[in-house]
Amino acid sequence: MRYPFEWVEGCVTAPKGFRAAGVRCGVKSQGRDLAVIVSEVPAVAAGMFTTNRAAAPCVRHSRHVVEAGTARAIVANSGNANAATGEEGFIDNVRMAQKVAQLLECPPAQVVTASTGVIGHRLPLEKIEAGIVQALNELSPQGGHNAAEAIMTTDTVPKTAALALQLPEGEVRIGGIAKGAGMIAPNVATMLCFLTTDAQISSPALQQVLKDAVERSFHCLTIDGDTSTNDMVVVLANGQSGVDMSRYLDDFELALETLCKRLAQQIARDGEGATKLVEIEVRGARTFTEARKAGKTVAESPLVKTALFGNDPNWGRILAALGRSGVEMDADRVQIALQGTLVYTDGRPTEFDARALHKQLKADTVRIVIDLQHGTEHATVWTCDFSYDYVRINAEYHT
Amino acid sequence: MRYPFEWVEGCVTAPKGFRAAGVRCGVKSQGRDLAVIVSEVPAVAAGMFTTNRAAAPCVRHSRHVVEAGTARAIVANSGNANAATGEEGFIDNVRMAQKVAQLLECPPAQVVTASTGVIGHRLPLEKIEAGIVQALNELSPQGGHNAAEAIMTTDTVPKTAALALQLPEGEVRIGGIAKGAGMIAPNVATMLCFLTTDAQISSPALQQVLKDAVERSFHCLTIDGDTSTNDMVVVLANGQSGVDMSRYLDDFELALETLCKRLAQQIARDGEGATKLVEIEVRGARTFTEARKAGKTVAESPLVKTALFGNDPNWGRILAALGRSGVEMDADRVQIALQGTLVYTDGRPTEFDARALHKQLKADTVRIVIDLQHGTEHATVWTCDFSYDYVRINAEYHT
Repeated sequence: MRYPFEWVEGCVTAPKGFRAAGVRCGVKSQGRDLAVIVSEVPAVAAGMFTTNRAAAPCVRHSRHVVEAGTARAIVANSGNANAATGEEGFIDNVRMAQKVAQLLECPPAQVVTASTGVIGHRLPLEKIEAGIVQALNELSPQGGHNAAEAIMTTDTVPKTAALALQLPEGEVRIGGIAKGAGMIAPNVATMLCFLTTDAQISSPALQQVLKDAVERSFHCLTIDGDTSTNDMVVVLANGQSGVDMSRYLDDFELALETLCKRLAQQIARDGEGATKLVEIEVRGARTFTEARKAGKTVAESPLVKTALFGNDPNWGRILAALGRSGVEMDADRVQIALQGTLVYTDGRPTEFDARALHKQLKADTVRIVIDLQHGTEHATVWTCDFSYDYVRINAEYHT
Repeated sequence: MRYPFEWVEGCVTAPKGFRAAGVRCGVKSQGRDLAVIVSEVPAVAAGMFTTNRAAAPCVRHSRHVVEAGTARAIVANSGNANAATGEEGFIDNVRMAQKVAQLLECPPAQVVTASTGVIGHRLPLEKIEAGIVQALNELSPQGGHNAAEAIMTTDTVPKTAALALQLPEGEVRIGGIAKGAGMIAPNVATMLCFLTTDAQISSPALQQVLKDAVERSFHCLTIDGDTSTNDMVVVLANGQSGVDMSRYLDDFELALETLCKRLAQQIARDGEGATKLVEIEVRGARTFTEARKAGKTVAESPLVKTALFGNDPNWGRILAALGRSGVEMDADRVQIALQGTLVYTDGRPTEFDARALHKQLKADTVRIVIDLQHGTEHATVWTCDFSYDYVRINAEYHT
């Protein structure tokens, strides 16, 4: 049997034994720009990082933290990605970890660092260090929302979620904050997600559960196909619930995956210039990986995305994207439905009411269901449409 | 030694023994929409076709023609792609070939067919057949330009080129017409290219030479990464120059490749909404394929393309695209130059004059040179920028 979970208030400070803060230290031109999340006790850490070969210093440092397996804190700034900053950038990043470590009296190797924002500029380290002092002074069990605000760049809203999983031995909570995968201002898209849980879980188990959850959530999210130099998803598990997960790994994985999906949807809906959330479900694939690949090819097609912005039931562009996705398919067997209306089957369009469907596509959430009829696996992918504002946001900025 | 070639007037009718016509038969709302290219004698045929699994009937038919190796004519219509039209679509396509074959008194299996335009609608076969009759009546050695016009969809200008290769045994000519790889209105991007030559060449040699030329020209062209259901490049070689190519295959390949590159550049410059041609040269790669892959990842990045529209010297987006391209690289060794100005080296940006470079990026041709410093191979890729008009053209159309 599966144990139930429910959404609860709050985010990274919803689980026991976590405090957080988000303050303004002056890296961005306005708003909070420095976040700290601290566990009362050393926590088991796991993480997934960008595969971009121009990975920033924070990614390389935090990968080491996660490999060692224990962390006390996460520190993140917005407004400056500290990427493409040469050897000095590595030193600046270590200093950021050292400042937190010094104040928490823990090793710097237990401090996850993250940066997001412009690339090619040195971090204003004095401001960052002053911000760290202030943030650690303001740490609170209600500080998660401020932390979520402090990692925003072109995001228009903070992304937060938390849930409680009811197990026979007691309640386990998972919370998270994230920031957008839009082409995040002004240089590169960065997706950050920080997760916390009071579950008691081993390091290898946490890494495996996180990997599975990310595969079906953030790896199913695409705004424009651009992968950042700074992307990361990190989870800290501090065991403060006292509930051992070893018997409930499936339940924990499902809960974590569900939480990550909710954050992924929030990110997609808030993509740069987005007017709607687009959910693409691909069924009837041979494997989950093929289903996701087909879905992502559709989700990343500029043709499909501009059609969705125009509320155009353009099944032809979807079919053409599927055809070039590299996924095994027979165009005559594929079925495509938009907002519940079957628009393509048996190798040709149905006689759907294009005017009615055009109206239905004006919704704030558009659902595309594709059945390849070629297997039994499925995947859901999230993206957004492609608007004038996307071009404006990304063309009008000048380095 | 290499024998010289020079650009000459005309296009597909520049080589000996070819005639062409482009007429209006009424598939599009206005303008010429039916093209025919005919060789006086049966010609050796070679072709490269879309790998899209939703390939249209014309692609499947023309692939068979090329496999058999001989063709008398090419017939192409614009305005309707005859794709996703079920079994009837196959029959309509065969009828199109049959009509030409009947009038030329050749087998239908010697008639290459091509269609481009909306998908999911039956071909208006009566109009097409009437157009074929008219076009064959109007065939002329000066008809190439009209044929180039008749394959246009959202292209704003016809794409044509021809050259003459001077060999000891005499002159050999190659000519070509093409249509755009923009997201061609209104459903899918279709790139068509028809080439003619009076060279005497065997079928396997022609296929190999075409493949090599396409690898370094059209396969280095990308507008938005969307591959159509109908793309094809076909070449007919009718031997009418009397010059045997077997001793000059390298010269012939270079000439054909150069011609294809010129057509590819014309297509990129005329991409939907394009304000400029963007040429990206990647040097210092381990292989040509890796160089091209890196270049195409940069060329297809919406972030890079919108920055170019905004004339922004945004090396960070280029670096981030390179990093996720999957190509072996060390971000600290990569060098990036825009319009001849080095903007990134040794892991960080140079102190370039951003204002001056912003002005230089307003040119109608932008050149990006990337040196991976990781090998000795190079490739050049062509694309265009990503503008408001791109979104307008593709969002405001309604199926």
